[in-house]
Amino acid sequence: MRTLLAFIFCLLPLVAFPETTETSVRQVLEKQQAAWNAHNLETFLSGYWNSPELTFFSGAKMTSGWQATMERYQKTYQGEGREMGKLEFSDLNIQPLGADSAFVRGAWHLTMSDGKTPHGLFTLVFRKFPEGWKIVHDHTSAAE
Amino acid sequence: MRTLLAFIFCLLPLVAFPETTETSVRQVLEKQQAAWNAHNLETFLSGYWNSPELTFFSGAKMTSGWQATMERYQKTYQGEGREMGKLEFSDLNIQPLGADSAFVRGAWHLTMSDGKTPHGLFTLVFRKFPEGWKIVHDHTSAAE
Repeated sequence: MRTLLAFIFCLLPLVAFPETTETSVRQVLEKQQAAWNAHNLETFLSGYWNSPELTFFSGAKMTSGWQATMERYQKTYQGEGREMGKLEFSDLNIQPLGADSAFVRGAWHLTMSDGKTPHGLFTLVFRKFPEGWKIVHDHTSAAE
Repeated sequence: MRTLLAFIFCLLPLVAFPETTETSVRQVLEKQQAAWNAHNLETFLSGYWNSPELTFFSGAKMTSGWQATMERYQKTYQGEGREMGKLEFSDLNIQPLGADSAFVRGAWHLTMSDGKTPHGLFTLVFRKFPEGWKIVHDHTSAAE
C-alpha cells in the first residue's frame, strides 16, 4: 500500500502539470545544448524552423533561411582551425506570447580548448508547428 | 464633382484598412525615429514599456527596467563628448504573434557629425497595453 501511494505521488506532477509552452521550449534548448556539446550541428539546427523565412541576426549581419544559417554555423565553428567548444545556456527567461508563440531571453557561454570564453546574449522567437516548437528568429550578440 | 470623387478616393484606404497591429507598431517606431532626430530622448523612450520588467540587450550587456534603459541612452548618447546623430530605421519586418503581441526585425543606422556611421540590427518584442503598443524587450547589436 505504501509503495502504491509513493508511486501515485511520483506520478502526480505529470498529471497536475501538463506540458506547458515553457517546458516544451526549454526541452528544445536543452536538446540544442546537448547536441552542441556532442558536436552534432545537424541536431542542434533541428531546433530551428527549416524554412527560407528563418532569420539569424548577429552583429550587423542578417542571415536568411535555414540552409544559410547551417552554413554560417559550419563556417564559424567547424571551419579550418575552428572548434565548437563547450556550450552553456543560462539566465533563460521563457515568455509565452499567445497560444503558439513565445520569446526567450538568455545568455550563452562557450569554453574553448585554449581557455578562451566567448559569451553573450540571445533573443529567440519560437513558434509552435505541427512538428513541435521551433526557433523562427535568433538574435545573438557577443561581448566586444 | 470630380473633386468630390478624388476626395472620397483619398479617404478610401483609411476606411477599407482599419488600424492593424502592423500599422500601430510602425507608428511607434516612426514616432521614435522622429523623437531621436529631434534629440528628445523622453519621447523616444515613451515607445518602451515603463516597467522594471523591460529588458534591453546589447552585446553581452543586459539592462533591466525602463529607468536603467533611459540612463543607458543618456550616458551613451548625451554624455560628455557624445551626440545622438541622425537615426534611420530600415528593413522593418513586423510580425504579429497572437492578438496582443508582435516582434519586429530591423536595421538601424546613425550618421554622426564627424561622418561616422554606427549601424546594426535590432529585434523588438512588442505587447499591446491599454495605453498602446510598447516595446517590452529590445536586442540591439552593432557592426564590429
